[in-house]
Amino acid sequence: MDKKELALKKHAEWRGKLSVETKAPITNREELAIAYTPGVAEPCLEIQKDESLAYTYTGKGNTVAVITDGTAVLGLGDIGPSAGMPVMEGKCALFKTFAGIDAIPICVDTKDPEEIISTVRNISKSFGGINLEDISAPRCFEIERRLIEECDIPVFHDDQHGTAIITCAGLLNAVKLTGRKMGNLKIAISGAGSAGISIAKMVMRMGFGDVILCGSKGTIYDGAPYNNPEQQKMAKVTNKECIKGTLADAMKGADILIGVSKPGVVTQDMIRSMAKDPIVFVMANPVPEIMPDLAKEAGAAVVGTGRSDFPNQVNNVLAFPGIFRGALDARARRITEEMKEAAARAIASCIPEDKLTADYVLPDAFDPNVVKNVAEAVMKEAERTK
Amino acid sequence: MDKKELALKKHAEWRGKLSVETKAPITNREELAIAYTPGVAEPCLEIQKDESLAYTYTGKGNTVAVITDGTAVLGLGDIGPSAGMPVMEGKCALFKTFAGIDAIPICVDTKDPEEIISTVRNISKSFGGINLEDISAPRCFEIERRLIEECDIPVFHDDQHGTAIITCAGLLNAVKLTGRKMGNLKIAISGAGSAGISIAKMVMRMGFGDVILCGSKGTIYDGAPYNNPEQQKMAKVTNKECIKGTLADAMKGADILIGVSKPGVVTQDMIRSMAKDPIVFVMANPVPEIMPDLAKEAGAAVVGTGRSDFPNQVNNVLAFPGIFRGALDARARRITEEMKEAAARAIASCIPEDKLTADYVLPDAFDPNVVKNVAEAVMKEAERTK
Repeated sequence: MDKKELALKKHAEWRGKLSVETKAPITNREELAIAYTPGVAEPCLEIQKDESLAYTYTGKGNTVAVITDGTAVLGLGDIGPSAGMPVMEGKCALFKTFAGIDAIPICVDTKDPEEIISTVRNISKSFGGINLEDISAPRCFEIERRLIEECDIPVFHDDQHGTAIITCAGLLNAVKLTGRKMGNLKIAISGAGSAGISIAKMVMRMGFGDVILCGSKGTIYDGAPYNNPEQQKMAKVTNKECIKGTLADAMKGADILIGVSKPGVVTQDMIRSMAKDPIVFVMANPVPEIMPDLAKEAGAAVVGTGRSDFPNQVNNVLAFPGIFRGALDARARRITEEMKEAAARAIASCIPEDKLTADYVLPDAFDPNVVKNVAEAVMKEAERTK
Repeated sequence: MDKKELALKKHAEWRGKLSVETKAPITNREELAIAYTPGVAEPCLEIQKDESLAYTYTGKGNTVAVITDGTAVLGLGDIGPSAGMPVMEGKCALFKTFAGIDAIPICVDTKDPEEIISTVRNISKSFGGINLEDISAPRCFEIERRLIEECDIPVFHDDQHGTAIITCAGLLNAVKLTGRKMGNLKIAISGAGSAGISIAKMVMRMGFGDVILCGSKGTIYDGAPYNNPEQQKMAKVTNKECIKGTLADAMKGADILIGVSKPGVVTQDMIRSMAKDPIVFVMANPVPEIMPDLAKEAGAAVVGTGRSDFPNQVNNVLAFPGIFRGALDARARRITEEMKEAAARAIASCIPEDKLTADYVLPDAFDPNVVKNVAEAVMKEAERTK
């Protein structure tokens, strides 16, 4: 049986990867009278007096909703809300497995951003946090921004920030390993969608250097018109030398290449045109922008991908479980830029300096220290700014 | 420690009565690649091709959302969405305990019926059924009606139908026990809110006889103006003799009294004014319209209440677990009136005729046959009309 068949067979056996279990025993009238009427009236009345007691008397403080509209599921595109559910259930399973968080998969059956925003806001009091997932760009930016504003719990679009946080973690170690200095590095990014833009923002905020974003029509630079308002904004703050042209032009002399675009768009010659010992994170899935062996042959010092069968996997599971664990435990209202940076540094520091190698700049997804360290760092940062 | 303190203490220990567990093991890369990327793409693509496969590859077919807006929680009134959550969690715990259903508590933070409808409809594809809970009348009627229309899964407002179904089950046995004939019985109902109206409809549909609804301003009769459109409708089809006056007037010569109103509104004299061997279901909570011993002293042949410390408890847990179990298993699109009647008859028939007594016209909440029998009857009825 091949892997596709096995995945289908297992999913049919599970009929859903999650189950909801009760922690309150209800085996007789006495127990029923505590967990349900009349006893349940007491916590209700307490929460009515002080809403923050929802964290004491309900599961709110350990519950995250994983919400999609099904418009950008994996690499499959707009497959609709129902078809997105297996991924949401999987994400919820990861929340539980890696961070002990009770996560609830929800698919929203509308593509209208305003309706998505009002729907999610209207149900947000049921949860301690909201993980947005697989919502297409550029709608995802506005949806996340508004929900962060309108909800009083953390809202986090993992596709934007997760990849950015882990890429930055890998870059921190790769920069150290190749003896570079932070600050004046040149970074080319292939892909100007939600992941590319989010990575660009984080790379700049953390002070790596100047970024050149490159979309399907070429580099993004100040002066050109962009339909995507996020690209418009990025044009103002990136590409200081105003390089116009293709990805090949963007990569010339670059220290770092980050790919969140399409399989095979990077050639060995393009790698050779980069600065000495370049750092290459090529995360197109399932086939990267250039295969790791080819990149290395062309001189890449460190190569990371999105795949589990190559070293340095940029796997979102390194970030979101610990980030939500920390944010929930600190009862943070928002996941701030500082908390995301703290998460990136915590992931990077899971590998002791003397163990760093070209094939080990990112920890393994199953390294038990990762969630613990990320959660602690995020919680510390959340409490510092409370 | 008194019971209220114990309920608070237990709720604080649980910090939520539910947990979400994973059925898919994720302990290594291979398992991760099946439950999540890349394997998860296969069930996604299958569901994209045929949406009904969501019942095969996700938990949809065993998942019910328990949704409130917090406007009519228990007898506590409009305590808000957050304060309603302990009840919703409790209801979910009952769904699991009694019927093995994975239930998800959701509180909606708006009181606007249109917004509630669009919010619930927008998330409805995530579930196999929706149990509306503790939504105030008369809004609940329109909200349920519209959601039944607009969703392709069963939607059921338990406060309306649950009590009606179980009351009818109890009445079926009580009518048999007191040697009455169905058809020309006279039924007085104290309380003209969602429960009262819903009971009135079901009692008439099942052919018990004529109903006189009595609200806080007296009997409901054709010709008087009513702000509540549901009461307006009921005025046309109930109270054939057009009795005007108070509950005392409605009860004169009645065979059956059903109370879903307020503690203490029924006197012994009012019971004495009823027909011989009257049947009295007084379900005001926690104190019934008249205490069972007083009702019996005044001649009541059968007395039921909402309380677990008296015989014949009208406990909603007798109905909703089996109804949803049957509806989910039949993959019914709606919970029809016929399915509700089938549920009532199934509950009544859980007590063999030779075991029927005045104190045993309704089965015990923990009788394991109840869910099984109700589910089978509902499924059979659902499949009959498919």
